[in-house]
Amino acid sequence: MNFPGRFITIEGGEGSGKSTLIAELNRFLTNSGYSVLVTREPGGTVFGEKVRELLLEEKKDLRVGLLAELFLFLASRSQHIEEVIKPALISGRVVLCDRFNDSTIAYQGIARGLGRELVEDQCHLACQGVFPDLTLFLDLDPELGLKRRELAEGKPSEKDRIENAGLFFHESVRKALLFLAEENADRIHVIDASFPKEVVLEKSLRILQPFLKRTS
Amino acid sequence: MNFPGRFITIEGGEGSGKSTLIAELNRFLTNSGYSVLVTREPGGTVFGEKVRELLLEEKKDLRVGLLAELFLFLASRSQHIEEVIKPALISGRVVLCDRFNDSTIAYQGIARGLGRELVEDQCHLACQGVFPDLTLFLDLDPELGLKRRELAEGKPSEKDRIENAGLFFHESVRKALLFLAEENADRIHVIDASFPKEVVLEKSLRILQPFLKRTS
Repeated sequence: MNFPGRFITIEGGEGSGKSTLIAELNRFLTNSGYSVLVTREPGGTVFGEKVRELLLEEKKDLRVGLLAELFLFLASRSQHIEEVIKPALISGRVVLCDRFNDSTIAYQGIARGLGRELVEDQCHLACQGVFPDLTLFLDLDPELGLKRRELAEGKPSEKDRIENAGLFFHESVRKALLFLAEENADRIHVIDASFPKEVVLEKSLRILQPFLKRTS
Repeated sequence: MNFPGRFITIEGGEGSGKSTLIAELNRFLTNSGYSVLVTREPGGTVFGEKVRELLLEEKKDLRVGLLAELFLFLASRSQHIEEVIKPALISGRVVLCDRFNDSTIAYQGIARGLGRELVEDQCHLACQGVFPDLTLFLDLDPELGLKRRELAEGKPSEKDRIENAGLFFHESVRKALLFLAEENADRIHVIDASFPKEVVLEKSLRILQPFLKRTS
């Protein structure tokens, strides 16, 4: 579907600087006169945040299988699209979303092994025709990302079920996202996130600004 | 898939007597030497019960769209299959489940309008090859069902989002279930639930007992 707004997603592993970049892009674009909406997946709605809580819970008695996990992500996503993202795009806003379909395809579909095609089809169903116009993938060695996060927090990072999956898993996710970026080179832009945050912002704006001008 | 156990689902609207029948079937089959597992949808697992809570919550600030609702049902179902139903069937038990795919297809697919084929496909994905062997549909005029429930509770029935959808909706669901029963006449058995509970039990056993003997 073609909306007056633009739907930008930001992908990247732990410690890759997604939150920092999104905050800076929000400030910059707002100062440039854009109406910006910042949101995240899973979450983005009252319902989605409840689903997010369920997804992050790690209890001995809360077993969540791969497929059940996928359906939870999809529940959050379809509500997010319907209630928040689509209306924002219709009213011409720039939506900056922390993680979206590419994460689900990379994590659940490829790295966890549910199958790329299955997860992609399911994401398409959940999105009801609303897809990102442009994606920034902050690419970083997962080991460096986890160290960064620990440094920033002054302690070993808080452990939830998803972040605690181990380095090997994070490396699989990175490879999967790089693979998706190659396949969708017109939409997904890979940014080397090992650079200082000022450089990452500059590189991002060099992609985003002409895109927003060209398509507005 | 072919398991040593048998998977029996019980469908029917509010006040149709599902819980009563399931309790009586459980007692009867257990006394006859079967190992019986009673469970329900949505729910059936710790995770599924949390999902059930989300589904039944009706708050001004908890908007849940049709598709998000479907994905929640599917999350509960896939976990239920994987963690509870499949292991029980593998170990030769008789599983009695209060609502299953037919409810989802009738409520979300047909009566709410998401589309029968879409919802059926999604249920198949969630079930991972595990489907009911036999289904008892307790058919009742919804008006009578709601009156029965109010009588039993001595007050107007507690209102949750799903039960509060109005008589017209419940009539659409009934029609949808009758339609599914016609299409799946070899699996779904329609039982007139306006009869006293003793008669409903007798009719159910007249279907269930030969089925269990024939297939064991």
